[in-house]
Amino acid sequence: MAENPFLKEEKIWVLDGAMGTMLMKKGMDVNYAPELLNVKHPEVLMEIHEEYIEAGADIIETNTFGSNRIKLSHYGLEDRVKELTKAGVRLAKEASRGRALVALSVGPTGVFVEPVGDYSFDEIKDVFKEQIEAGAEAGADLILIETMSDTKEAKAAVVAAQEICDLPVLVSMTYQEDGRTLLGTPPEVSAAIFEGFNVSAVGANCSLGPESFVNLVRRMASVTETPIVVYANAGLPVLKDGKTIYPEPPEVFGEYAVKLVEAGANIVGGCCGTTPEHIRAIKEAVKDLKPVKRNPIRGLKVASRTKLVFIGTGHPTRMIGERINPTGKKRLQDSLKRGDFSIVKEEAKKQTEEGADLLDVNVGVPGIDEPKAMKEAVRTVIETTDLPIVIDSKDPKAVEEALKMCDGRPIVNSCSGEVKDIKNILPLVKKYGANVLLLAIDDEGLKESAEDRVEIVERLLEKCEEIGIDRSSTLADVLNLAVSAMPESAVETLRAIRLVKEKFGIATTLGVSNVSFGLPARPLINSSFMAMAIYSGLDSGILNTGDSRMVETVFSSDVIVGKDRGAQRFTERFQNYRPKGEDRECRELLSKICQLSCSFLKGEKVSVEFEQKEEKKEGKKESEDEGAPEGVLGKI
Amino acid sequence: MAENPFLKEEKIWVLDGAMGTMLMKKGMDVNYAPELLNVKHPEVLMEIHEEYIEAGADIIETNTFGSNRIKLSHYGLEDRVKELTKAGVRLAKEASRGRALVALSVGPTGVFVEPVGDYSFDEIKDVFKEQIEAGAEAGADLILIETMSDTKEAKAAVVAAQEICDLPVLVSMTYQEDGRTLLGTPPEVSAAIFEGFNVSAVGANCSLGPESFVNLVRRMASVTETPIVVYANAGLPVLKDGKTIYPEPPEVFGEYAVKLVEAGANIVGGCCGTTPEHIRAIKEAVKDLKPVKRNPIRGLKVASRTKLVFIGTGHPTRMIGERINPTGKKRLQDSLKRGDFSIVKEEAKKQTEEGADLLDVNVGVPGIDEPKAMKEAVRTVIETTDLPIVIDSKDPKAVEEALKMCDGRPIVNSCSGEVKDIKNILPLVKKYGANVLLLAIDDEGLKESAEDRVEIVERLLEKCEEIGIDRSSTLADVLNLAVSAMPESAVETLRAIRLVKEKFGIATTLGVSNVSFGLPARPLINSSFMAMAIYSGLDSGILNTGDSRMVETVFSSDVIVGKDRGAQRFTERFQNYRPKGEDRECRELLSKICQLSCSFLKGEKVSVEFEQKEEKKEGKKESEDEGAPEGVLGKI
Ligand SMILES: [Zn+2]
Ligand SMILES: [Zn+2]
Ligand SMILES: [Zn+2]
Repeated sequence: MAENPFLKEEKIWVLDGAMGTMLMKKGMDVNYAPELLNVKHPEVLMEIHEEYIEAGADIIETNTFGSNRIKLSHYGLEDRVKELTKAGVRLAKEASRGRALVALSVGPTGVFVEPVGDYSFDEIKDVFKEQIEAGAEAGADLILIETMSDTKEAKAAVVAAQEICDLPVLVSMTYQEDGRTLLGTPPEVSAAIFEGFNVSAVGANCSLGPESFVNLVRRMASVTETPIVVYANAGLPVLKDGKTIYPEPPEVFGEYAVKLVEAGANIVGGCCGTTPEHIRAIKEAVKDLKPVKRNPIRGLKVASRTKLVFIGTGHPTRMIGERINPTGKKRLQDSLKRGDFSIVKEEAKKQTEEGADLLDVNVGVPGIDEPKAMKEAVRTVIETTDLPIVIDSKDPKAVEEALKMCDGRPIVNSCSGEVKDIKNILPLVKKYGANVLLLAIDDEGLKESAEDRVEIVERLLEKCEEIGIDRSSTLADVLNLAVSAMPESAVETLRAIRLVKEKFGIATTLGVSNVSFGLPARPLINSSFMAMAIYSGLDSGILNTGDSRMVETVFSSDVIVGKDRGAQRFTERFQNYRPKGEDRECRELLSKICQLSCSFLKGEKVSVEFEQKEEKKEGKKESEDEGAPEGVLGKI
Repeated sequence: MAENPFLKEEKIWVLDGAMGTMLMKKGMDVNYAPELLNVKHPEVLMEIHEEYIEAGADIIETNTFGSNRIKLSHYGLEDRVKELTKAGVRLAKEASRGRALVALSVGPTGVFVEPVGDYSFDEIKDVFKEQIEAGAEAGADLILIETMSDTKEAKAAVVAAQEICDLPVLVSMTYQEDGRTLLGTPPEVSAAIFEGFNVSAVGANCSLGPESFVNLVRRMASVTETPIVVYANAGLPVLKDGKTIYPEPPEVFGEYAVKLVEAGANIVGGCCGTTPEHIRAIKEAVKDLKPVKRNPIRGLKVASRTKLVFIGTGHPTRMIGERINPTGKKRLQDSLKRGDFSIVKEEAKKQTEEGADLLDVNVGVPGIDEPKAMKEAVRTVIETTDLPIVIDSKDPKAVEEALKMCDGRPIVNSCSGEVKDIKNILPLVKKYGANVLLLAIDDEGLKESAEDRVEIVERLLEKCEEIGIDRSSTLADVLNLAVSAMPESAVETLRAIRLVKEKFGIATTLGVSNVSFGLPARPLINSSFMAMAIYSGLDSGILNTGDSRMVETVFSSDVIVGKDRGAQRFTERFQNYRPKGEDRECRELLSKICQLSCSFLKGEKVSVEFEQKEEKKEGKKESEDEGAPEGVLGKI
C-alpha cells in the first residue's frame, strides 16, 4: 500500500496554480488539445513548471488533465494517450529536478458512467488505466484525480490507479455554489467515499473563488482525517474587453490560504486563473503553519451519491430496510426471475418513505443470474432513492457487480469467518472502498455462546487489518438465533453485542426478526428484543420499516439510551402520535351497514338496533380470520 | 426476637395427641367448657400429659384451646380467661417437669374478622392477647395457634403473641378436602403469610386423616424454610353404636409420620381421635429421622387470602396495577372525598381482567382522612379481586389500617431512606409480617447516579436486618426519573437495577411510566424502557395494565430473557394476536357510506366511485383530529 506522504511531515503543502491560464499567457492555443503542447512546445511547459516551483510549489501538476482516450478522441488523438501523458510527466520531472513532487493530473472524461450515463464502470476504468499507467511508467510521484463532478467516475479512476500502481492518489471534486457537485454530491459524501479507498488526500478544486472553499474544507474535515487538498479558481471568470479575466488577486489567495488551513486543509494551491504570484502568496502565508488537529465525527460511513449516514456509537440507531429480499416471497422471486424490477422499485420507495436509513438489496433466487440481477436491482434502487445500499449476497460476482454500480460507499453484507468469504469477499471490499459486515459464523457453523461469536469477529478484524480495511469500515453482526429453538440464545446475542462494543468499539448490526422465528405475535418479540439490543449497544438493525411497532421502538429506545438527547428526533416524529385503534368495532359497523342496506333494498323492515356487545363476542373468531379492513372493502 | 427451637436441633419433634378424646376416655364431659376441667379435674389433665410424655411427646399442649373471652362467653365464663388459661399451663408444666416443652394451645374464637366478619382486627387481637398474656405469665414455652380457618384471625393471634412476649409462635391451619381452608386459603399461602411473621413453625392440623397431610406439607415445604408442624386427626370420625369413632389406628400414624417427614415436616403429632398409642407409634417411626433439606421456590412472597405471587429472579415479570391512585385524577379524587369507593372497585376489577398480578392501592388526596379511606379502599379491593395488595402511602396510620385489613401478605410501598420512614414504616412492616418496598431516595433527595441510589438501598437493607425483616421480604425500587429532564437518568436507572440484582439479589420494581414524563407518545417510551429494564433485571413494574403495548412488552420480554422458557405464557396469551389496525381507512369508508346514504335519501344521483387514494391524503389532518371510531359512531 502507498504510504501517505502528507501524513509524514507536519506541514502545509503548496500545490501549483493554473496550467491553462499560464499557457494562454504564454501565447499558446489552449482550445485545441492542450496536451499536444507537451510534444509541440515542451519548452513552454518547462517554463511554467519552473515558475511555479520558484514561487514555492511543493507539488506541480503535469499537463495531462485531458490526456485520456475519450477527451483526446475529440481531436482524433485517441491513440496518443500514452505518448502525450508520458511526455507531460517527463517535462514536469525534468523541470522539477527533485524540488517538487510531480502529480499526474487526471481530469474527467466528459462522459457519464451508468446509471447516470451509458458507459460501464469497467469501460471508464480502462480509459483511466491507460492514462495512469503511462503516467506511472513515466515516473509521476502522485496521481491527482481532479475537477470531478461524478463520484462514480472518480471511483473508477481511483480503482484504475490502485490496480496499476502503488502511488499515492488524491481525489478532488468540483462543487457548485450550492455546495454540491453537478450530480448532487456534498463534500462530506465525497470525503467519506474516497476515504474508503484510503486515498492520500480528498479535496475540492476549480469552479469558484477561495472564499467558497472554506466551508467545503470544514465540512470534509468534520467527517474524515484524510488530508485535504484545496485549490480554488481565481474567482468566477468575467469577460473584460473580450478577454476572460479571473478577478481574485494573489493577496486574496494568501489570506484565504490561512483560512483554508484553519478549516482543515493540508495542501493548498490554485486552479483556473491563478499564477505563480498566487502561489507565492499562498506559500508566504502557509510556510510556518501546521495542519490543524481534527476531531471528525466517528462511526461507520455509508454513503449514496448524495447522502452520508453514520453508523455507530453516538449516532441514532439506523434502520436498514430488509424488504428487498426474495426469501420466502413468491411474488418477488417470480418477478426477479422475469427480470422485472418493479417490486424492487416499489419496495425501495416504500421503505424510504417509512424512514429507512439504508436499504439492504438481496436478489438471491435459486437459478437466477445473480450478478446480472444484482446489478439491475442496485441500479433500480439508486434511481429510486437516495439511501445508501447494503449489498446482500454471498456470490462474489454479484457483490462485485453491485460495487461497480454503487455511486457511494455501500456496505457489503457479508463476510463471514468462512475461508471462502475471507478469500473472495474481503478483497472486493478493499478494492471498491466499501464497508463490510462481519458475520459471526464460520466454517464450524453457528456458535451459541457470546464469547465464541465475538471471537469470530475478532479473527475477521485481524483479516481486515491484514488486507488494509480499517476497523471504521466494519460492522459486526453477531448473529441472532431463534429464541424458540434456544432459550438462552437471545441473551447471548445481547451479551455478544455488548462485548463487541466493549472490545472493538466497532459498529454493530443485526437481523432483528430472526429472534422470533417460530413464535406467534412476532412483532411483539421483535420490538422488545430491539429495545434490549439498543440498550446493549446495537447501532443498527436489518428490519422491516413497515412494522410501525419496530420503528417506534427504535425511536423511543434512542431517547432512553441517550442517542436522541432532548428527544428531538422522537418528538418530531411522534408529536401527534396516537395509538392505533382496534378496528374491529369499525368493521362490525361497516358490516351492519351493509346488512341494513341490503335489507332496505330488498324492501325488508329495517331494524336499527345495534346489538354491538353480543355481536362482538360471537363475531370475534370470524372477523379475525377475515383480515384487515380490506376484507370489508371486498364485501362492499 | 424469639429463637427458633426447631432449628437448633436437627431432629424431628413429636407433638402430643388429642386432648378431647382423652378427656372423654377418662369419663369427662367435654361438651361443656373443657377448659373448666383445668380447675375442676386437674388430676385428669396431669394424667393425660403424663401419658403423652411417656409415649414420647417432646411437646405437650395445654388444655386451653378455647380459653378465650369469646368462646368462654358461651358458658358465661368470659371473665375467667386468665384463671383457666394459667391453670392449664401450670398443669402441663407440672406434669412435664422439664421433660417436654409446654405449648399454649390457642384455638379460634369462632367468629370472623372483617372484611369477612364484623370484628375488627384489633378486637380479635385483644381477645388473643388476654389469653396469651396469661399463658406466657404462667410459663408456657411455646404459643401454638391452631386449627385456624381464617388467616386474618390467625394473624391477629400472631400479632397478639408477638406484642405480649418473645416466645416461639407456631401457626397451624385446618384444611378441607380441597386443600384449602374454609375461607379458601391454600397451604402455600398460609406458609407465605406466617413466614412473614418469622414464626417458629407453620403447619396443618385436624380435619382429615394423615394421608391427606402429605401433600399439604409438601406444598408448604415448596415455598418456605420455616419448620413445619403437622398433626392429623385419626381419620374422619364415624358414628358407631351411637359413639364417635376415629378410625385410623396408631400404626397408620407411624407409617405416615415417615411420609410426612419426607414431605418436609419437622414436628409431627396427632389431633382429634389420637391417643398416646398413636404418639408412641409416631415417636418410634421418627426417632432416628432428620428433617429433609428443602429447596423452596425463592423470591419475594406476596399474598392475598387465596393467592401467592412470587416476585424475583426466575419468576415472570409481575405487573403491579397502578390505577388505584388519585394523583392527577379528578374523578377518583372527588369520589374518595365523598367516601365513594365505586371507582376503586371498578379499577380493581378492570386491572384484574387486564392481567395485573398485584394491585397498588393509593388514596392520597389532600384533606382526606387517609387512614380511614385506605382501610375502606383495601376492603373494597379485597372484596373485588383475589390479587395481593401493594399498600401505597407515606402516612404510617394509613399503612397500619391497610395492614390490619389485608388478609394475606401485602407489600408496603414504601420505606425510603428518610429518617421518618425508617422510624415509622419499618416497624409496621415487621409487626404485620408484610413485605416492604425500599425506595432509593433519602433526606438528601433524588440521586442521579446508579451507585448513589444503590447505596441507599444498601442502607435500608441494613436497617431491615436490624429490625428483623429478612431480605426476601424486600423489594428495591431504584426510582425512575424523567429522561426529558435528565438524559442520562434512564440509563442510570437501568444500571441501578442491575447493580441491585448483582449486589443484593433482592426483588426489584419500578414505577415505569415516570421515565416518559414530559414527552409525547409516552407509551412508546415506556414500553421500550420496560424491555430494557426487564433485561437489566427488573422483576416487576408498577404500571398501567390497560396499556396493551406495555403488557405485550412484559410478556415478550420475558421470553427473550428466559423467564418464559419455551414461550408458553406468551403463546397462550398472544397465539391469536393481530396488530391493531390503522382505523383511518375504515373511518373514511364509514364517512363515505354516510355521504352516499344522505345523497340517496335526498334523491340525488349517487356516485359509487371511491376516490380513496386522494381522499386519504386530503382527509388526513381532519380525521386525525376526529379521534377514534367513536367519532364516526357519534356522527351516525
Ligand atoms: Zn479550475
Ligand atoms: Zn382435630
Ligand atoms: Zn386437636
